Amino acid sequence: MNTARREELAGIYRDGLLEDSLPFWLPRCVDGEHGGFLIARDRDGSLLDTDKGMWQQCRFTWLLATLHNTVEPREEWLAAARHGIEFISKHGFDADGRMWFHVTREGRPIRKRRYVFTETFGAIAHAACAKAMGDGELADKARELFSLAQRHFTTPGLAKPKYTDTRPMKGMGGPMMSLVTAQELRACLGDDSFNADIDACIEEIRRDFVKPDLECVMETVGANGEVLDHFDGRLLSPGHAIEGAWFVLNEAWHRGNDAALIELGCNMLDWMWARGWDEEHGGIFYFRDLHSKPVQEYWHDMKFWWVHNEAILATLLAHLLTGESRYEAMHRQVHDWAYAHFPDAEHGEWYGYLHRDGHVSASLKGNLWKGPFHLPRMQLLAWQWLTEEDSELPFNND
Amino acid sequence: MNTARREELAGIYRDGLLEDSLPFWLPRCVDGEHGGFLIARDRDGSLLDTDKGMWQQCRFTWLLATLHNTVEPREEWLAAARHGIEFISKHGFDADGRMWFHVTREGRPIRKRRYVFTETFGAIAHAACAKAMGDGELADKARELFSLAQRHFTTPGLAKPKYTDTRPMKGMGGPMMSLVTAQELRACLGDDSFNADIDACIEEIRRDFVKPDLECVMETVGANGEVLDHFDGRLLSPGHAIEGAWFVLNEAWHRGNDAALIELGCNMLDWMWARGWDEEHGGIFYFRDLHSKPVQEYWHDMKFWWVHNEAILATLLAHLLTGESRYEAMHRQVHDWAYAHFPDAEHGEWYGYLHRDGHVSASLKGNLWKGPFHLPRMQLLAWQWLTEEDSELPFNND
Repeated sequence: MNTARREELAGIYRDGLLEDSLPFWLPRCVDGEHGGFLIARDRDGSLLDTDKGMWQQCRFTWLLATLHNTVEPREEWLAAARHGIEFISKHGFDADGRMWFHVTREGRPIRKRRYVFTETFGAIAHAACAKAMGDGELADKARELFSLAQRHFTTPGLAKPKYTDTRPMKGMGGPMMSLVTAQELRACLGDDSFNADIDACIEEIRRDFVKPDLECVMETVGANGEVLDHFDGRLLSPGHAIEGAWFVLNEAWHRGNDAALIELGCNMLDWMWARGWDEEHGGIFYFRDLHSKPVQEYWHDMKFWWVHNEAILATLLAHLLTGESRYEAMHRQVHDWAYAHFPDAEHGEWYGYLHRDGHVSASLKGNLWKGPFHLPRMQLLAWQWLTEEDSELPFNND
Repeated sequence: MNTARREELAGIYRDGLLEDSLPFWLPRCVDGEHGGFLIARDRDGSLLDTDKGMWQQCRFTWLLATLHNTVEPREEWLAAARHGIEFISKHGFDADGRMWFHVTREGRPIRKRRYVFTETFGAIAHAACAKAMGDGELADKARELFSLAQRHFTTPGLAKPKYTDTRPMKGMGGPMMSLVTAQELRACLGDDSFNADIDACIEEIRRDFVKPDLECVMETVGANGEVLDHFDGRLLSPGHAIEGAWFVLNEAWHRGNDAALIELGCNMLDWMWARGWDEEHGGIFYFRDLHSKPVQEYWHDMKFWWVHNEAILATLLAHLLTGESRYEAMHRQVHDWAYAHFPDAEHGEWYGYLHRDGHVSASLKGNLWKGPFHLPRMQLLAWQWLTEEDSELPFNND
């Protein structure tokens, strides 16, 4: 990638973050009355639902503290992060230490889930705030939430299970979320002891989910990594696997361009790009079947914003780490398709849910799952990666 | 509807049942090795998954026994119904009397759900078999399952709840499924004491879910029928409400064309047709928002087979009961759209999942939710309704 292209892209991501996606949410979504953030917004920013999803409360708090920590110290970002972590601390937790998934505007609990993804987002929110505010208690809470999530990911049946033990299964989400959470805690808390957790996660992904013989990253496998020839077992999530690929590539970079990790991450990206890219309409499918059989999930061929955010990051990092021109081409391909279809030219930010052909299916900007996270995280990281000054990236000045 | 049109339609539904949909499944899906039915089929009938969903085991068993009971006694149908009820009896039940939702080919349990819909399908399977086989024990089991389902529908929190009690909600599915199950048990067991249950269900639908001021049938309301201005509370399911409409119209007919019930059922149909019909592409949307805001569920604008089966029945019965020509026109409209898009001309039966514009999204014919039920039930009932000889239908010979 030549310097002009690097500067062009860095500008797109930086300006997109600071002048488009962030201003859509801030200060609009700050709930001055009840605390936290009102995220469920229609395309023009109007409020669709006063309920608060804890995923988004935690993720936006993480983003704000991370901007303060890594872009520049800004009182506006720090104050909003504090506003977020206060709501989370006050209303995010059940008596058993688990986090709620969904609360009312006032913070009264609606739903807790079996799965501990909320807790992983809680961990990174606390860790980033701990660094931004120099607060040891927040750091302790981050570690506690990470341990809780780890315990649930690695102890089948700890939460009341949805399935019997007739056919034990596990998902890629466990080691993937543990991996990125540990990476974030290591960075924010400055604690290299998380390396052991990171090693274990990557080893589990490599051993149980990555299948070189099938050229595939599985989303759900048997307890020992078996491929299960059922609807669930064959279901592939290219966007999720490609997100996992850049977590691995990011670790490769952190470890001085570890060749084995670069190979693992690039394989994950290559194989799932081949399975996920829609040759007819462009963009990346949501689900595919291992053997190209019909998928049971109704929205299998839709194009989701976050899949494309993660693919932009993965292809960019693969190019920066390997210098291979095909990754630059893949990055351009997914960047161009995404920027041609997802942005809302009138009201800013991105639509989240497109039909296969790229037409908007639902115009909303925020709900329990979509909020200020995947898009601004992509913009922030891609901007940072493209402008690393003393980078160890071997090919960043070619 | 003139006699020629009645005869034409009766032929389409009859032949579709006996020469198209039924032969797709029978004898193909009978599992001679492990019992029950192998339903998860691709468009050409090839097997996609050996797992067995209990909804489909129960529903196909009900259909087979009902064909034997109401079309003509056929040893083939009776034997297959017996084959089904034996698998259900042997592998369908947990120790607590609840039914499994999903089992392996051999019948080992994979998953039980909080919700008791499986048990309502179990009840009608047992009731239809009780009649076909003259078996009092099956009749007792049908009553037991109905009572169990009723208890769960009317006792919030009896199964471990998914939500806290911060904002109690209830779904249209409870009274609707109780209503049609009670109607079926009354017919099969010849027991009019189910009338009290039926009255209670219809009263609950009328009181809590049907909103004349909004011209709407709600899918989810507060515990006392409150409209909840949140994503969940605003979510409308036109197909579900229209299915409920014909359950009510069917009851009106059973009670000698009860005028109040005809009015209720026709209102439900009219209002949800107005909200559900897609003026641009034709067909009926899966979900709509009460205030036409964006819907959170990704597949909101897809066209599902069962929605159209139920709309064909509802519009037909509304016409037969009222004689109004607009219902004949609506019936023609939904019949024509459905028959232009859902049937698989090459391999028979119907696709289940179309995109908004009518193109096939997933080619499969069977999975945990789709099987030999909505389509053959529509064909059977429409054929029967159109050929009632001593009918009390006021307008069936106009």
